Amino acid sequence: MLYFIGLGLGDAKDITVKGLEIVKQCSRVYLEAYTSILTVGKDALEEYYGRELLLADRDMVEQEADEILKGADVSDVAFLVVGDPFGATTHSDLVLRAVNAGIQYRVIHNASIMNAVGCCGLQLYNFGETVSIVFWTDTWRPESFYDKIKKNRDLGMHTLCLLGEGRKIYEPPRFMTVSQAAEQLLEITICVGLARVGAEDQVIRAGTLRQLASCDLGGPLHSMIVTGHLHPLEVDMLRLSAATPDALQDLRMTDSSTYTS
Amino acid sequence: MLYFIGLGLGDAKDITVKGLEIVKQCSRVYLEAYTSILTVGKDALEEYYGRELLLADRDMVEQEADEILKGADVSDVAFLVVGDPFGATTHSDLVLRAVNAGIQYRVIHNASIMNAVGCCGLQLYNFGETVSIVFWTDTWRPESFYDKIKKNRDLGMHTLCLLGEGRKIYEPPRFMTVSQAAEQLLEITICVGLARVGAEDQVIRAGTLRQLASCDLGGPLHSMIVTGHLHPLEVDMLRLSAATPDALQDLRMTDSSTYTS
Repeated sequence: MLYFIGLGLGDAKDITVKGLEIVKQCSRVYLEAYTSILTVGKDALEEYYGRELLLADRDMVEQEADEILKGADVSDVAFLVVGDPFGATTHSDLVLRAVNAGIQYRVIHNASIMNAVGCCGLQLYNFGETVSIVFWTDTWRPESFYDKIKKNRDLGMHTLCLLGEGRKIYEPPRFMTVSQAAEQLLEITICVGLARVGAEDQVIRAGTLRQLASCDLGGPLHSMIVTGHLHPLEVDMLRLSAATPDALQDLRMTDSSTYTS
Repeated sequence: MLYFIGLGLGDAKDITVKGLEIVKQCSRVYLEAYTSILTVGKDALEEYYGRELLLADRDMVEQEADEILKGADVSDVAFLVVGDPFGATTHSDLVLRAVNAGIQYRVIHNASIMNAVGCCGLQLYNFGETVSIVFWTDTWRPESFYDKIKKNRDLGMHTLCLLGEGRKIYEPPRFMTVSQAAEQLLEITICVGLARVGAEDQVIRAGTLRQLASCDLGGPLHSMIVTGHLHPLEVDMLRLSAATPDALQDLRMTDSSTYTS
């Protein structure tokens, strides 16, 4: 059996009880090491789980999948993923390879930024398409995320922006900050910056893009929401995380004059 | 401290290690008992956690919140929610009451249907607004969910349909099946039915609405996705869950003739 086990978002203890039991009993345990990071490193996980972890980088998962699947038809292999196992396409690829090789698989779910983002008070039902805001280079300045955000806003939907993806395969991960992303989006209105969701030191800041551009939310991972139409209860929740004391003072007024629903 | 602890989707062992440690140490532990259900009952949770659980129904959370918050400024109180704590608006309300009463709160995240639905192979990034399909009555036949699904499809987005909400407060929960929901949506194309996601006996079935209408996916909870534009890798994944052997045979062809992206 090939187990896909989500590790959640914070530290070693965010694994589920069920997930931990399976990790302890598997013959090999891989740690997927490229789509996201926890607030603790591989060493801390190995110590808490009491197991050696084999790092599976993007190359290995995409080109040496057979190595991961080896023997999984007769013994148990675990593939650990930060967040939930089905945030990234590449794990679909691994599932299909397993099925084609006659290997059964099972998923142990956990929180990921796609649902935990609800902690800021915006309702998950009201999110449209998720976008990635990538680092611009001198020669590569994609703007497609802007159009998607605009489409969502036209429908009154919030947009979760995943930050800093699109790096080249052979580069180490680069983490875009909320401040960097806000600089690219200054002309759009109320946003929410989230850092290290689920960890002890998580930070949530709501404000205009200009305000967020000067906010330092600390270490990775950062995410950002561009709000759509705001429900009054959502406004109350966002005020708990206001970037400055008067940041969202006029929000409800602005909101009702901007939208006509 | 008031702890909001997600229980995940399956059984007692889907709580995180961190969540379980907090449950064992709190002075009172409430179990939110109206927005969703696990595959096991309150008794099984009490036995596994080694704690008495106080049932908090919708009335209590909305009208007797003070009871829940009592003493949480000097001791620890846990509020357990199936899935992740921030799927439902009412918990925002409880957060705001706590903050106004000077009580600190913390969220222990977990999987919810909003992210675990990725297990079917459709990419979470490509979901638009989530809709609720409610039971129609003789006098109440809302159709707004149809317009939202259509908007998402116009944008090429998938739609997660939560089933069977909208019941009256004083009625016991009623769980709409995928079959019942599909009957209402027969004229739309490829859908995915999901039952008991994260549990041992989870079921995923992909097919046309007419096919899903005659599929029995067993006990609650059921969810359903109406697909938007399908990526080839998503089609491959959906074939793993085809309702009938030839259900999705012509899908890629149909897809490319329907969409022009």
